[in-house]
Amino acid sequence: MSHTQALCRFLAELSYAQLPDNVLARAEDLYLDWLASALASKGAHPITLFERYAQKMGPSRGPAQVIVSGGSSSAYFAALVNAAASHLVEQDDLHNSSVLHPATVVFPAALAAAQDLGKSGRALLLASVAGYEAGIRIGEFMGRSHYRIFHTTATVGTLAAAVAVGKLLDFNQEQFINLLGTAGTQAAGLWEFLRDAADSKQLHTAKAAADGLLAAYLTADGLTGARNILEGDQGLAAGMSSDATPAKLSAELGSRWALLETSFKFHASCRHTHPAADALLEVMQRNGLRAEQIAHVQTRVHQGAIDVLGRVNVPTSVHQAKFSMGTVLGLLAVHGKAGLTEFHECALSDPAVWAFRDKVSMTLDPEVDRAYPQRWLGRVTVTTVDGRTLHGAIDEPKGDPGNTLSRVELADKFRRLTQFSGARTPAEADALIEKVWNLRHAASLADWL
Amino acid sequence: MSHTQALCRFLAELSYAQLPDNVLARAEDLYLDWLASALASKGAHPITLFERYAQKMGPSRGPAQVIVSGGSSSAYFAALVNAAASHLVEQDDLHNSSVLHPATVVFPAALAAAQDLGKSGRALLLASVAGYEAGIRIGEFMGRSHYRIFHTTATVGTLAAAVAVGKLLDFNQEQFINLLGTAGTQAAGLWEFLRDAADSKQLHTAKAAADGLLAAYLTADGLTGARNILEGDQGLAAGMSSDATPAKLSAELGSRWALLETSFKFHASCRHTHPAADALLEVMQRNGLRAEQIAHVQTRVHQGAIDVLGRVNVPTSVHQAKFSMGTVLGLLAVHGKAGLTEFHECALSDPAVWAFRDKVSMTLDPEVDRAYPQRWLGRVTVTTVDGRTLHGAIDEPKGDPGNTLSRVELADKFRRLTQFSGARTPAEADALIEKVWNLRHAASLADWL
Repeated sequence: MSHTQALCRFLAELSYAQLPDNVLARAEDLYLDWLASALASKGAHPITLFERYAQKMGPSRGPAQVIVSGGSSSAYFAALVNAAASHLVEQDDLHNSSVLHPATVVFPAALAAAQDLGKSGRALLLASVAGYEAGIRIGEFMGRSHYRIFHTTATVGTLAAAVAVGKLLDFNQEQFINLLGTAGTQAAGLWEFLRDAADSKQLHTAKAAADGLLAAYLTADGLTGARNILEGDQGLAAGMSSDATPAKLSAELGSRWALLETSFKFHASCRHTHPAADALLEVMQRNGLRAEQIAHVQTRVHQGAIDVLGRVNVPTSVHQAKFSMGTVLGLLAVHGKAGLTEFHECALSDPAVWAFRDKVSMTLDPEVDRAYPQRWLGRVTVTTVDGRTLHGAIDEPKGDPGNTLSRVELADKFRRLTQFSGARTPAEADALIEKVWNLRHAASLADWL
Repeated sequence: MSHTQALCRFLAELSYAQLPDNVLARAEDLYLDWLASALASKGAHPITLFERYAQKMGPSRGPAQVIVSGGSSSAYFAALVNAAASHLVEQDDLHNSSVLHPATVVFPAALAAAQDLGKSGRALLLASVAGYEAGIRIGEFMGRSHYRIFHTTATVGTLAAAVAVGKLLDFNQEQFINLLGTAGTQAAGLWEFLRDAADSKQLHTAKAAADGLLAAYLTADGLTGARNILEGDQGLAAGMSSDATPAKLSAELGSRWALLETSFKFHASCRHTHPAADALLEVMQRNGLRAEQIAHVQTRVHQGAIDVLGRVNVPTSVHQAKFSMGTVLGLLAVHGKAGLTEFHECALSDPAVWAFRDKVSMTLDPEVDRAYPQRWLGRVTVTTVDGRTLHGAIDEPKGDPGNTLSRVELADKFRRLTQFSGARTPAEADALIEKVWNLRHAASLADWL
């Protein structure tokens, strides 16, 4: 049995009864965190473009809800818009060793299909776990070389979303094999947009969720796909990776729950900035430093951070500022926080943040790079104005599994994000939080929102 | 000015008045040929799956016509279904040096958008020429290494379709730059499906046309894309090619019309079989040979033919038989033709064709390989039962620009293909042919079919 076949057998056989309670609870946490990210982008560019496109090309209403607008459409367009929406504010979750953002692709596809099919909260949770477990392993399989050029959340995200919908459709092993083929041959998404501050990141998650859903619905109706899309000579790894590891596809299925390793984002920036951000906060707090006492910050990072962040020198948009190491550290040093409000009010317009930005450099650190992507180590060397050299180090950024957010912190983040965009009043936010904590008891997700 | 910028300026400035008459006439020929391929797949698997998907996820009717069903939908879904339909019977056109099938991605997107936007026949022809010129150059730019793993008609096809729709939307240079970014980051499609006889080939063209159209509509509404998706460090060639040639993007714009170099398919099989097929016909006719007199045929081919055809030994479906060199040569040797009817009636069930299939081998020929992909040379060595060794050679397969199909032959092909599927009666076929020859005089394409 190939690794792909073993993975597909696991996905077909996975049952709700098999899910440990901490996996179910964390899946609800991740779902709440995803919903917060989606609601936070209400009314923002380019999400309104996707809403208009769905209105033009899709039915005027349908069984699946469009979170940001409050309207509805077919499952395909709801997945498209909701996935575009949930990756915009850079607050959605991340799995470290796969460098995959699972929530923004898995939940939009799963929710849209669950609503279309009239499925329960339990079915949604089971499907989402399947999407996480498969997507994370496929991301790990594709390796670091893939992420250097390709946006893994776009490429591998297509397969993760497809698996979640396939599970809602009760696929057997054979259907999952065809599904991976049909999803995998649609996998796309290049990092090139980043240096131009272009809108492709939202397009990537939108298309991954929608294409994954399309793959599952067509597979259910009988479309066949390549049987070895991951490992084959003309497959995904052959075309888009030079360091793929097939054994990772089937490692520890059913014993290791990769979903539990997923990190929540605390700062509203690219996750590659978080280890250094937390290390800077650590050294500033320990030494009682203020921003104006700092002459230079050398962040010592993994190569992946340089690949993604290295193109952004002077950010020209709020979204691009989230990929500027200097801006993120500047917000934290000057304002103590790098949340949505700080980004929108200060990232581009506060001279103190600009000034700090120019004091920050990035260099490759061999120790940090060796640990990556399994561990995202934070290391900074701070030179003070009065000539001292201080070192900051953290081994688990805030939000990592060993340093995770509590339900109180997650609820607080949900309130902040939904109020930031005006998508929900505080009372509405609290009601929705309560609803998520009871997701596993929802008999049907139709009109759930 | 970069090659990408030069290409985008050309696309923005290209006008109908600038198109030579032979280009316009050939565009009409290619359009007729495309329509024949689409109509030939009426009722066939997996096209009905795409029709059902469009009905489920799209509006129940719309401004764009679905060719095979006779219904309508939004432009997005019409492009999706029509593009799936037009690549199924392996009779659509091919451009040699780019190894791109332009019609099956350019025309579905262009027609759907033209109907949605109420554009004229002239606008459709201009847009289609733009799609061909850009798509072919981008295919040449991506090089042979790309085609080894990726289905160029899927990947580059997304950009070709996008350009055609962008031209219908009257894009300026800046919009075309963003459009290429947004289309290019969606480019996907792997050859892996072929060895399994899976349905992905139709999915590839469907998604290329629909995603290209999506890219254009979103660009028109203001979505930005990477400005250097083709040539950039984290762009299409960086991720999916090892022999890209940027100069090919802007070579001879406005003086060389790449559309004129496009080949029509005479045999209903993968184009990689055609040179050897015609060479076998040549040697059999010259020597008055019959199938049973032949002991062995050694086809001497380019590497690309081995990459695509080499996986298929014993075909298990009619579609896969079109990628079996032995089956194609067997049909020609035994029945004198390898059209749709011969494939459907004899490819899998005629013992004489099977027997001939096992007499055929493929070997790499350095001379043929050097000429490829600019020229597709046909070379076969035939060993007869009575011990003779005979050589067959053709330098331009039937349908190539120097050996093209006349309008009489194209009309005949149209009648054969539409009658094969029962999509049109002979009288209806003749009326539609007449309509295509007058395409440039159509004031609006709404309800054109």
